[in-house]
Amino acid sequence: MKNILVLGAGRSSSSLIKYLLELFEKTSSTITVGDQSENLAKEKTKNHPNSRCIQFTLEDQALKEKEIAGADVVISMLPPSMHTVVARECLKQKKHLITASYVSPEMAALHEDAKKSGLLFLNEAGLDPGIDHMSAMQIIDKIKASGGEITSFKSYTGGLIAPESDDNPWHYKFTWNPRNVILAGQGTAKYIEGGKYRYIPYNRLFKQTRIIEAEGLIFEGYANRDSLSYIDHYGLNKIKTMLRGTLRIAPFCRAWSVFVSLGLTDDSFIIDNSEKLSYADIVEALLPFSSKNELTLKEKLAIFCNEETTSVVMDMIEWTGILSDEKHGVKNASPAKILQTLLEQKLILKPDDKDMIVMHHEFIYQVNNENHKIYSLLVVKGEDTVHTAMSKTVGIPVGICARLLIENKIKDRGVLIPVNKEIYEPVLKELKNSGINFKEKEEQLTS
Amino acid sequence: MKNILVLGAGRSSSSLIKYLLELFEKTSSTITVGDQSENLAKEKTKNHPNSRCIQFTLEDQALKEKEIAGADVVISMLPPSMHTVVARECLKQKKHLITASYVSPEMAALHEDAKKSGLLFLNEAGLDPGIDHMSAMQIIDKIKASGGEITSFKSYTGGLIAPESDDNPWHYKFTWNPRNVILAGQGTAKYIEGGKYRYIPYNRLFKQTRIIEAEGLIFEGYANRDSLSYIDHYGLNKIKTMLRGTLRIAPFCRAWSVFVSLGLTDDSFIIDNSEKLSYADIVEALLPFSSKNELTLKEKLAIFCNEETTSVVMDMIEWTGILSDEKHGVKNASPAKILQTLLEQKLILKPDDKDMIVMHHEFIYQVNNENHKIYSLLVVKGEDTVHTAMSKTVGIPVGICARLLIENKIKDRGVLIPVNKEIYEPVLKELKNSGINFKEKEEQLTS
Repeated sequence: MKNILVLGAGRSSSSLIKYLLELFEKTSSTITVGDQSENLAKEKTKNHPNSRCIQFTLEDQALKEKEIAGADVVISMLPPSMHTVVARECLKQKKHLITASYVSPEMAALHEDAKKSGLLFLNEAGLDPGIDHMSAMQIIDKIKASGGEITSFKSYTGGLIAPESDDNPWHYKFTWNPRNVILAGQGTAKYIEGGKYRYIPYNRLFKQTRIIEAEGLIFEGYANRDSLSYIDHYGLNKIKTMLRGTLRIAPFCRAWSVFVSLGLTDDSFIIDNSEKLSYADIVEALLPFSSKNELTLKEKLAIFCNEETTSVVMDMIEWTGILSDEKHGVKNASPAKILQTLLEQKLILKPDDKDMIVMHHEFIYQVNNENHKIYSLLVVKGEDTVHTAMSKTVGIPVGICARLLIENKIKDRGVLIPVNKEIYEPVLKELKNSGINFKEKEEQLTS
Repeated sequence: MKNILVLGAGRSSSSLIKYLLELFEKTSSTITVGDQSENLAKEKTKNHPNSRCIQFTLEDQALKEKEIAGADVVISMLPPSMHTVVARECLKQKKHLITASYVSPEMAALHEDAKKSGLLFLNEAGLDPGIDHMSAMQIIDKIKASGGEITSFKSYTGGLIAPESDDNPWHYKFTWNPRNVILAGQGTAKYIEGGKYRYIPYNRLFKQTRIIEAEGLIFEGYANRDSLSYIDHYGLNKIKTMLRGTLRIAPFCRAWSVFVSLGLTDDSFIIDNSEKLSYADIVEALLPFSSKNELTLKEKLAIFCNEETTSVVMDMIEWTGILSDEKHGVKNASPAKILQTLLEQKLILKPDDKDMIVMHHEFIYQVNNENHKIYSLLVVKGEDTVHTAMSKTVGIPVGICARLLIENKIKDRGVLIPVNKEIYEPVLKELKNSGINFKEKEEQLTS
């Protein structure tokens, strides 16, 4: 009889909880779900006999100690900044921990202590990071085993809308935090191409995209902030090209780039008297001043961004309502906040909408002086607005890792990410059973 | 017999000290010059009988009290962040204070206390801010007195190189802190044009310039960060267009814009292994990846920035050496730091070089249903590398204000800037005697 403590019952926990409850069906093992809102936890467990729901906050020291003491494995689906508080308690009470978040420097600092205590603190066990590492490492290890040398690895992931729910010209809806989508990519992206470091400043990020065709769709991929940090983890120290990025359905990036150039994604300053202005006023304020009053705002904007007034991109921009005389009414708003307010109304998920996760890897490797290319593609669609593709692909791998831990099938200890065969092999196998399955294609390149 | 305490003997203090010593010639009044380096202070006073030099730091509480106690007026030419420490001591000891810096919120908070104590803490009494306020207010008050209404005010100032010392294609040399020049304009510029607020994001700042012709030279003006804060101070609440900016000799801004687009002025990230890279490597790393190996770096850059390879702008870029294979050798350097390292070698003032200050105001006003335009132009050249135009135009107005204070010719009290006639009229008159003189031109506009 085991007990798994799941902290946080938000969106990504739905499919995790479902997976664990199905796993424990007809056993006496249980999960305890703790959330600030006990009701939210109950919505997710639906009073399943193998579940127990509690109101939980990290501030309640005694409760934290008691619940972690009673668990065999702890899963933190709390906001990333809270993981180390949980981790330190796990260390005291000698409990394993799993998260779906990036390893923070504070978490990394616990490596030796966790290892000495015989504990696994497994992070980056969700989708991205998570499934991306596992699926990439499976291919990397296979290529290495065949004596091949990987020269290029490009990997893109996108949280998108399924084609059957796609009813807008952006081919996009918010399937996660809208603010993060508005501010995505700010900072400088860095990657390696042709053996050299490359940097893309934010103002060019959505222009320097790559086209990827898959599933009959045309995607644009833009580079993520730091593509280099996994070179070591993946054991690819001689690689010439390595790029991790984000996917959108074309021509999202080309149109988004207009917002970026205009300054509409800028969160660093406040528009004066913003609540009194219409969306059109905001665009006008950001456009270079023109005395050509005979031009419409759409025409001025088309000239500014070097588009035809009738182009698809200009239609996408107009469709959002950003050129309209409607007032947004938000006080002390930055351009980014104003854009977010508008897009939240236009790009909202409807109750019957299904989301879609697409992950696309592309490897080039050399073996016997021949160049080969491997494509690997994952497409997952949501079941409904609770068991979304995002929830499934983040939650289920975390759940599988927890299962492997209580079944004593993982021997690695310390603060780790799932790049070792011992973990990724059983996880990917089990994911397949849940319909989370990569399609692989290999071709030989003529040189 | 009076004593003026001058804190800080840096570049801008040279002409201030010279002005005050000439003023006190054949009197028993004195100046005390305090600096971290007593030698630097002595270089400036040259052991003049009316001067006394001391080693001075704000940390030495007793010395600070003693020296301020012994002064009639205190002038702080220290870094801006230190002014309030001096101001609080002046408040205790009931001494007037003058600075050439912007009024910080901390300084502004002392207004009522200074006023109650019968003290003047006069800030923004240098060039920009300083002479710009005084010269603008003289014209504004004159227009208002004639019943005119000002509809537009554009004002630009530039710290430049004098034409006789201009021997490079940028028509520019560093006459002040190079780092500030490299990072100039970062953030979002805001101004008002045609009755509406306008915003210019940094990535377009050096593209949205205005051409200004004066003295046979063609200048480009780019907008300063905040042009709106002086609308109230100047009493221009109904103004439709107000813009404050910085002048460069054309086509500086067009060429600088290439650096900005490339990301070479970015100080927010570090180039990996920067010390091992050549300047050309850095440019290559920032350029969009191209597999066209038959193109030279200059050709790739020209395509990127939409210039002809043989254009003046491309020649300016190449002249800096940024396309060369030379290694810069700076460790952990941001692109901005690398650019600064390079330009500090290329755009350095030579011992015989003379700098030049240009200030250009342009007013449009309405009177009797007629539109009039007034241009006002200040050109000041440096005498040598000590008494530069910058030193003269910052230091002499501060010196004149000090003189007016010890002669009891200013009645205003509190934390102020020189926008009142009582101050600007005698200062501008006296500046004329020092060769700092505006030329004015007025024309009637056909509507």
